[in-house]
Amino acid sequence: MIPHLYCVVLAGGSGTRFWPASRKSMPKQLLAIGPEPECLIAATVRRIEALCPPERTLIATGVHLLDATERALDWLPRSSFLGEPVAKNTAPCIAWATWAVLARDPQAVVMVLPSDQHVADPEAFRRALSAAVDTARGGVITTIGLEPTRAETGYGYIEAGAELGPEVRRVARFVEKPDRARAEQYLASGRHFWNSGMFFFRADVMESAVRRHLPEVAAALDGIARLPERERTEATARAFEAFPSVSIDYAVMEKADELAVVVASFGWSDLGSWQTAWELAEKDEQDNAAPPDAVLVEARGNLVRDLRSDGRSRVIALVGVEGLCVIETDDALLVLPREQAQDVRKVVERLQARGSSERV
Amino acid sequence: MIPHLYCVVLAGGSGTRFWPASRKSMPKQLLAIGPEPECLIAATVRRIEALCPPERTLIATGVHLLDATERALDWLPRSSFLGEPVAKNTAPCIAWATWAVLARDPQAVVMVLPSDQHVADPEAFRRALSAAVDTARGGVITTIGLEPTRAETGYGYIEAGAELGPEVRRVARFVEKPDRARAEQYLASGRHFWNSGMFFFRADVMESAVRRHLPEVAAALDGIARLPERERTEATARAFEAFPSVSIDYAVMEKADELAVVVASFGWSDLGSWQTAWELAEKDEQDNAAPPDAVLVEARGNLVRDLRSDGRSRVIALVGVEGLCVIETDDALLVLPREQAQDVRKVVERLQARGSSERV
Repeated sequence: MIPHLYCVVLAGGSGTRFWPASRKSMPKQLLAIGPEPECLIAATVRRIEALCPPERTLIATGVHLLDATERALDWLPRSSFLGEPVAKNTAPCIAWATWAVLARDPQAVVMVLPSDQHVADPEAFRRALSAAVDTARGGVITTIGLEPTRAETGYGYIEAGAELGPEVRRVARFVEKPDRARAEQYLASGRHFWNSGMFFFRADVMESAVRRHLPEVAAALDGIARLPERERTEATARAFEAFPSVSIDYAVMEKADELAVVVASFGWSDLGSWQTAWELAEKDEQDNAAPPDAVLVEARGNLVRDLRSDGRSRVIALVGVEGLCVIETDDALLVLPREQAQDVRKVVERLQARGSSERV
Repeated sequence: MIPHLYCVVLAGGSGTRFWPASRKSMPKQLLAIGPEPECLIAATVRRIEALCPPERTLIATGVHLLDATERALDWLPRSSFLGEPVAKNTAPCIAWATWAVLARDPQAVVMVLPSDQHVADPEAFRRALSAAVDTARGGVITTIGLEPTRAETGYGYIEAGAELGPEVRRVARFVEKPDRARAEQYLASGRHFWNSGMFFFRADVMESAVRRHLPEVAAALDGIARLPERERTEATARAFEAFPSVSIDYAVMEKADELAVVVASFGWSDLGSWQTAWELAEKDEQDNAAPPDAVLVEARGNLVRDLRSDGRSRVIALVGVEGLCVIETDDALLVLPREQAQDVRKVVERLQARGSSERV
């Protein structure tokens, strides 16, 4: 355990990349699509338990996801869950969480983690987190930069500057998703790291930054804190309506005088598509990731997922097909090549155009 | 209507080629896998109604299929159904049906039809049937030979000899499934026709043939006919146990002095695989045969069948795949390329080896 450490898990996302498993009411972090048997957010919370106990772990999610999220993390106290009345990007949410943490512990250090990633080496992950917490404790907002293993064009990058300590460097700048040529340069440079979307700060430091850069948010949160408990939910809802929709990167990080990045490598994956789910999954000798009772005849490199909830036994048979995703849920079946996994969104678009809102 | 014409529909089959739709307890003829909305045996019976009314149509099936078959043909009188106690190939079954027909009409002419075929041109089909019935009325057992449209190696052939009338020829011999080279020769010869598995005979002619070639079967059927009605079921069960398992081709046809073949062409298909089902199905501009609410993105030439019976709405989405069969039932899902449709049997073999008898 690290004293005074609080964790805020961001769980507001609602993506389409894992359709038909993911839906508006069942986003990716609530699905067991990684190699662990539990859903991604549960794996995320378990992964940090050794650093930060349940009573110091906060979950920021949308009010419409609150029930499902509480069920997925039923060993956390109910007071752990912050239900955002309206999604306003990350800044208002992190400000709210910072105020909540400060009310409990003025010396708090906070780490903000995404809820839906995969980590292959949890020990190395926790070492990196500890290093980032140590750095943040000195007063500088800190991120984690992942050593790139390929010329990835789907992620943002952090360009690192001068060394601040072992594996800790100053952030020179944040870089948007690059094109292929630039991604190759980044991979070769030794100065560019994948932006993992995790950050670390002392609560009082973030509070000052919010007061300075988002004064209307700070004022509203101060006002809510003065209200009796029973009036806070409604006041928070009103306040969120008025908050600007802005990211913490834009509102705070980019305006900071100094930022630090801990450079690390722990088998990180953003689990961004069914393709990634296949890559991380346990596979048989023919590279199929499928339920044990599936019948696979001359089938190679397929991802088969039976996510139905009705409990009825069903045999899935694949013959002579290669590199397919076959995903079943209670009300949908998807068949597409792994290499086209990004095209899932085209199905969602068609369904939206058709008005099949219950399917997306 | 043709006077004295009786029809015997052979519905004993239990194939694996339409797994997961077809099962031991739900063979192909009970499935709506052709382009008609009804199951194949219902389409078969409707197709001949103009020649032969329901009260002169007999359905020969296995006892274990009797209930399902009666439900599929619920407009036929219950006396139409002959439930074979044990499958003994076609000869005992046709002998039994012949005795049953003769008891009703000594002048009967019988046509024996498979229950699971498709006919694109029912008018031409009925014209061919009428010609065959006319020929059979003269005393000669008659078949229908189909003009081959391709060098098919999956069917038996009839080699035709001398002309006996317009479109009617003497059968020179029956030929087993040929290899590719021989099939090409047959296609070019003008003398070889696909054996459709339909035959036509005067009931008294078949009776004499059975008395001569299968005397023990004839004796048993005579004995059963003398019993009171209530004792016949059990006596038939005992008799079938003792009958030889032999085809009508081998037991009777090949021993006849003369056989006739009516040469015809009526868009016949044996509907032998999911590939054939796709060929016959109505398709969209991208050659997909799929339910109207399926989501098809950059998908071509696929066959999608939702044969679930639970009535729950479900969306099937195919993205970027070509030439696949995607078949859903209540307890199974099959994905395989159309061109490998024959390999469905490999799935059935695996399931049998696994002891999953309820799935096959």
